[in-house]
Order: sequence, then C-alpha cells, then structure tokens
Amino acid sequence: MKYLHTMIRIHDIDKSLDFYCNKLGLKEQRRYDSDTGRYTLIFLAADGNKSALLELTYNWDPESYNEGRNFGHIAYEVENIYLSCQKLCDAGVTINRPPRDGYMAFIRSPDNISIELLQAGSALKPAEPWASMPNTGHW
Amino acid sequence: MKYLHTMIRIHDIDKSLDFYCNKLGLKEQRRYDSDTGRYTLIFLAADGNKSALLELTYNWDPESYNEGRNFGHIAYEVENIYLSCQKLCDAGVTINRPPRDGYMAFIRSPDNISIELLQAGSALKPAEPWASMPNTGHW
Repeated sequence: MKYLHTMIRIHDIDKSLDFYCNKLGLKEQRRYDSDTGRYTLIFLAADGNKSALLELTYNWDPESYNEGRNFGHIAYEVENIYLSCQKLCDAGVTINRPPRDGYMAFIRSPDNISIELLQAGSALKPAEPWASMPNTGHW
Repeated sequence: MKYLHTMIRIHDIDKSLDFYCNKLGLKEQRRYDSDTGRYTLIFLAADGNKSALLELTYNWDPESYNEGRNFGHIAYEVENIYLSCQKLCDAGVTINRPPRDGYMAFIRSPDNISIELLQAGSALKPAEPWASMPNTGHW
C-alpha cells in the first residue's frame, strides 16, 4: 500500500499553475484531459518526493468550491523558509502565518486550500521582517 | 522541497485509528500531545512511502468539521483492490464506489474524508460481487 496523491479542485488552471509551480515551486508531472468527463487532471510534485503527488482537478463546467473544516492543509518542507516566503511575498502571495519562529508558515492557494511550509531540519534564527510580522486572516 | 503530509481533523481518535489503521491498513508513525494547545497530532503512513504522511488533528475541545468542495480526496495504491475492499466491507465500511472496473474504489472516513483506492499496475479482471455492485451515496 502506498500514498499516491491528495486531490483538490481548482477554478482556474492558469492561476493555479502560477501559484503552485511559479510561486510555490512544484512541478507538473503529467496531465490528463477527459473530453467525455469534461475535466482536466494535473499532477504536481515537489522535487524531494516525486511519487507524492498533488492532483488538481479542473472541471470544465463551472462549480463552486467552498472550504470545509474536516480537511486541514497540505504541508511541504522547504530548504529555507525565509527565502521561500520572500519569493511568495514578492509574487504577491499573502503569508497568512509568517515564519516568526523561523520554522512554520501558512499560505492559501487561489482556491483557499491551506498550505503549510515547514523549515527542513531545525528552526532558523528569528529574523526580520518575519519576526514582527502579524498574522493575516486565518489558515 | 518535499511533500510532508496532508492534515485532516478528526472527532474521535479511537474510531479514526480503527478506520485508518485496522481497516484501511495505515500505520501510526508518531504522536504528539500538546497540553497547552489542547490537541493531539497523530501521523500515519502506508508502508510503500513512509515519508508521505497523513496527519490526524484531534482537538480536545469539541468542534464541528463540515465537508468542503475545494478538497477532493486522498488516494492510496493497493496491491489487490478486491481484497482491500472485501476487508473493508467485512469490517462494516461502506464501499461508496465499488471497484466495478477492477481498478478504482472510494470510501469515506468517519469524518467524511473521501479516500480513493487504486489498483497497483493494471486493472484486475472484473469480478463479482464488485462488478454489479451499485454506488452508495457520494464520494
């Protein structure tokens, strides 16, 4: 038995790939278009474990995707949480929970999926602007 | 960058571990209790990729966990989808989408998290009772 993927639904392929690939750093592994089912599946992965996938489901006919509380978040380890958060900030992504502790941050996808970033190894030394940055919204 | 886990919230530790471990086949990897935060985190994994975790969050103070549409499901590959589904059925778990095609099934956790089971390799030859088993509810 083996973990394959977590599937989330997206409203906009371009916005989602810009967020997950250009800004967050995942890479597209494969894609499947179903003309009969009228959906597109896009599988993404982080370099460190390419068999653990994030599946984006894009339904061609518009649907509304609300947020529930039984699902929490998806977590990725990053090599330097300050550099990752700076790259996200520079690209216009809100850091909902800044890494004040040098260890943990939370952001949101365009479809309000909560994403946790965790520093690999030990926490970094607290540093500005992160150490004094307040939370924004919830995650 | 590396995938670490998907976090879901649970109402009942015993019921959840019975479902995820005894019935589905995941194994507990580690556990963390926070007296100050009043929560317990339990990390589970399937044998095939133990670094890809499922994080169960149990908040000690009761909360309601509704289901949203932006999150879809968590998927695991299984060695024999008929044997997995039979074991789940025998343990009282509803197979919401039976593996009529010998390839794909869906079940629900006690907290309504949708879980996809996919046959490793190619689809098995269609076989009863699965081939003629109707869907139950949604997933």
